[in-house]
Amino acid sequence: MSAFRVGRITVIGVGLIGGSLALALKDAGFVGEVVGCGRGKPNLETALKLGIIDRYERDPQKAVDGADIVFLATPVRSLAAMVAEIAPALKAGAILTDGGSVKEEVLREIKPLVPAGVYFVGGHPIAGTEKSGAEAAFASLYKGKRCILTPDAQTDVDALEIVTAMWQAAGSEVVCMSAEKHDRVLAAISHLPHMVAYSLVNAVGSYDHYEENILEYSAGGFRDFTRIASSDPSMWRDIALANQSALIEMMEQFETFFAELKEDVRKGDTERLFEFFARSKQMRDAIL
Amino acid sequence: MSAFRVGRITVIGVGLIGGSLALALKDAGFVGEVVGCGRGKPNLETALKLGIIDRYERDPQKAVDGADIVFLATPVRSLAAMVAEIAPALKAGAILTDGGSVKEEVLREIKPLVPAGVYFVGGHPIAGTEKSGAEAAFASLYKGKRCILTPDAQTDVDALEIVTAMWQAAGSEVVCMSAEKHDRVLAAISHLPHMVAYSLVNAVGSYDHYEENILEYSAGGFRDFTRIASSDPSMWRDIALANQSALIEMMEQFETFFAELKEDVRKGDTERLFEFFARSKQMRDAIL
Repeated sequence: MSAFRVGRITVIGVGLIGGSLALALKDAGFVGEVVGCGRGKPNLETALKLGIIDRYERDPQKAVDGADIVFLATPVRSLAAMVAEIAPALKAGAILTDGGSVKEEVLREIKPLVPAGVYFVGGHPIAGTEKSGAEAAFASLYKGKRCILTPDAQTDVDALEIVTAMWQAAGSEVVCMSAEKHDRVLAAISHLPHMVAYSLVNAVGSYDHYEENILEYSAGGFRDFTRIASSDPSMWRDIALANQSALIEMMEQFETFFAELKEDVRKGDTERLFEFFARSKQMRDAIL
Repeated sequence: MSAFRVGRITVIGVGLIGGSLALALKDAGFVGEVVGCGRGKPNLETALKLGIIDRYERDPQKAVDGADIVFLATPVRSLAAMVAEIAPALKAGAILTDGGSVKEEVLREIKPLVPAGVYFVGGHPIAGTEKSGAEAAFASLYKGKRCILTPDAQTDVDALEIVTAMWQAAGSEVVCMSAEKHDRVLAAISHLPHMVAYSLVNAVGSYDHYEENILEYSAGGFRDFTRIASSDPSMWRDIALANQSALIEMMEQFETFFAELKEDVRKGDTERLFEFFARSKQMRDAIL
């Protein structure tokens, strides 16, 4: 049981991220009532049936009425518009926080929209699967995973403490860093790998040297490796656009290494190939 | 129980591939005795203790003496030298087959070395894990997996039938194709993904914008995605060199798609990004 307990949390966007947080906080006894809000009524009905939320409101302003914490789990590109819409309805002392995968650009848009007397804390849990929707939510999603919070000089210390306690109650290890650092770290460990996986599946699937589909031969390795290429296209379009500059930097970093490797293969450079693979194996094994 | 039964099989290279085949064939009652051979005595002792082989011989010529089938599971670049060494000791009517990941170049070297009266069938089971050695072997490795055989006009029909039955006894679905086609298919679904994974880990692990190791933040997704970058460096050096031309063709195919994606990110082309990700998701979901 957490040292904190919050009366009412409103989750806007009751999918994998928002729904799993709601379930985890209920399990931990961190929250009294969870109110859901989101665009799709069938999804909210599912969330209600699965016990993820206690009730829902279709109107965001009604949904946040009286909430102690509002957790925004809608797509990154919709966050600023949502904050603008709910701002007049937030109670004094409410804490507004999000789970968006990109922070710098998004927070720059959001912060001016937060009304006086409401505390904003940017956040991003490093967890997820390729599935989406309330049905994909489960209470242990965040257990043992990191959650990055991105406070700055303006962030209220008490609000930061409560949001930290919230993620800890969900089982996460909380780490704080700047929004700019967050975006570069995520570009490296998450956004770049997705771009690579999407490109790999497109490249292999479009290879038409043979009449039959070459993907038909793909064994478990390829399937595991490309699992993330099944992720939601509109979510990843939004992430790629919102984190454009850090992502392009990382894509170029990758291209440099890939071109070096291709050159070693072309030259048949035995030693450099071994060294390239061994260095990668060593780094990979260190994070096992 | 298979319709075929073979008296003695010699496995040269009792690691994940050779050891798992031995275990599967014993389970299926396909073979009477399995003789192991390989460079490392400790590994052969382990294989003996685990019941993978019934006995072993350090000398390859002694090991193949009297064998009905000899299965070569040593690294691809050592296959031709091994065939040259055992050739004088193979009995008339013996079947020689291999599990090498690259076929065209290797078979061109091997075929002239096979003595008259011995039948050669090239093969490659599409299965594996990132682990190696006899300890990694398990009987169900090939269950439900494809095994590609690469017969040509010279291949003996009866020998092909027996090798087909052997892989079917191990649980595989056998598919025949030319060595050239095999190498392009494997470059696409296996060799290219490994090059991509090795490059990704090197690129992310070498990114030193921050003092701390960025890989420290990598969550489950990155770990799963880069699992294959833990594969044996010398094995992959050899595969890259042996399948050089098909691999470079696929690496360039990948580079084209990756560059297209980077350009779409740079331009902020919303529609093209969505289309790129959606096409990939569709192709990926079709092979689930």
